[in-house]
Amino acid sequence: MQRHIMALCPGKPIRPERAEAVSALAKAEFPQISLAFAPQCFVEQGHFAGDDETRLAAFVAAANDPGIDAIWFAMGGYGSNRIAADAIAALGPAAHEKTYLGYSDAGTLLGALYRNRIGKPVHGPLAGDIRREGGEDAVRRVLRYLSGEEVPLEAGLDDRPTVAFNLMTLAMLVGTELMPDLTGHVVLVEEVAEHLYAVDRLFFHITEHLQGVAGIRLGRISEVPENDRPFGMTEEEIARHWCRRSGIPYLGRADIGHDAANAIVPFGVARAARDA
Amino acid sequence: MQRHIMALCPGKPIRPERAEAVSALAKAEFPQISLAFAPQCFVEQGHFAGDDETRLAAFVAAANDPGIDAIWFAMGGYGSNRIAADAIAALGPAAHEKTYLGYSDAGTLLGALYRNRIGKPVHGPLAGDIRREGGEDAVRRVLRYLSGEEVPLEAGLDDRPTVAFNLMTLAMLVGTELMPDLTGHVVLVEEVAEHLYAVDRLFFHITEHLQGVAGIRLGRISEVPENDRPFGMTEEEIARHWCRRSGIPYLGRADIGHDAANAIVPFGVARAARDA
Repeated sequence: MQRHIMALCPGKPIRPERAEAVSALAKAEFPQISLAFAPQCFVEQGHFAGDDETRLAAFVAAANDPGIDAIWFAMGGYGSNRIAADAIAALGPAAHEKTYLGYSDAGTLLGALYRNRIGKPVHGPLAGDIRREGGEDAVRRVLRYLSGEEVPLEAGLDDRPTVAFNLMTLAMLVGTELMPDLTGHVVLVEEVAEHLYAVDRLFFHITEHLQGVAGIRLGRISEVPENDRPFGMTEEEIARHWCRRSGIPYLGRADIGHDAANAIVPFGVARAARDA
Repeated sequence: MQRHIMALCPGKPIRPERAEAVSALAKAEFPQISLAFAPQCFVEQGHFAGDDETRLAAFVAAANDPGIDAIWFAMGGYGSNRIAADAIAALGPAAHEKTYLGYSDAGTLLGALYRNRIGKPVHGPLAGDIRREGGEDAVRRVLRYLSGEEVPLEAGLDDRPTVAFNLMTLAMLVGTELMPDLTGHVVLVEEVAEHLYAVDRLFFHITEHLQGVAGIRLGRISEVPENDRPFGMTEEEIARHWCRRSGIPYLGRADIGHDAANAIVPFGVARAARDA
């Protein structure tokens, strides 16, 4: 059965040569997949892949198209939060029959979809991750998953509902009209290019907001910038500290991060999500 | 009447030579002021001016000392949020009779004190601001204010209760157990060394959380790092955008920021606060 996938950029644009490479790989290796990049992906408007109206219109059109099986977020960056509330309000029945896959800034849309029980939000590599070392394998993993093939998911998933977020993205989401109820959920977080003091600050904020979750698992904290002095705690000591203070169970490490190994994490209970 | 001021570092340490310069200025020009820097200000423990226990103990001791009239936060950095909840729980009657002055990361403590109606929290220059161009005048302004002299406050203050925060500090404070109720308040925000996309993201977060405030005024957004492309909106367009979306009145610019001109803003109604 042919699977129709639309790639979108709700934040920043993807470079055309990277989209080309992903398309070529999909065409060569996944005959069962029809992958298209929306023209919006290549628009440049300041920081964004088109202004809010452009990104919103592209997302709503694709989500409401019954001929499209999955929306694949091609890039993160920043900008999903500027269109998410309007997008949710404009979604019709066809939007409920889709998979939405991505991470980083796109987590805002995944969270908002999950809050509103629309479709199947999935944390996983972006199309733009093809640029990374091992990126072709990350792209293959997503295309297999979206084809309905058996793909290894994040290894620690269990019977508890789970979500995965970039730490900053989650910190900006908590308490807003887009935030899902995560009671009883295992929450996986990862971060990139933030100082450890900022990671500590973000953990303070999210643990204050995540009362009632089943626990937190720590993904990779990568590309930490050099600071004028060492922070004095490791990333795991930070996570343990704030979990202990807030009474949230710290459940160990998670295999997610801004890298090609970034594992797939369907929002909700993984088994149910995969069988859906 | 002699005024006793204790300088503390709830986040990062102050360099001894800067504390010396502030002490020398106070001694030379303010005979009515007795200014001491707690030894804790010079401890270096990773990122912090001493570990959490050290910073907490110094703050609680000074706040509960009836012989001290004001606590002056000497440096920001990061770390107030790690001690604020325990500090509030340990404060006795003498803590209610004090002024607490600072900004940036120290805003977390000012906010927690304001929430709990303890003493008189005031946004204003740090002792460490003496390092800035015009810094000596910023220090003089604080010492005059803490002496009880007439000092120009932020020029836009009116009869409405007002608070002032660093934008990131406020974003990490909203929704937490330290956050004051700002219903009906004018909220002044400033930021330093953050990309405009981060400022946009922070405005999304705070405007979602600040429903019921009287309005927001925008201080200086300084030292914005170079990005790989322009954001496409000015700082004021960002503030107007999120105020419009959230229905919060945008009330114009404010004379606060990470600079020597950073104006004094007593939390609450300025006139009442000054007469208290």
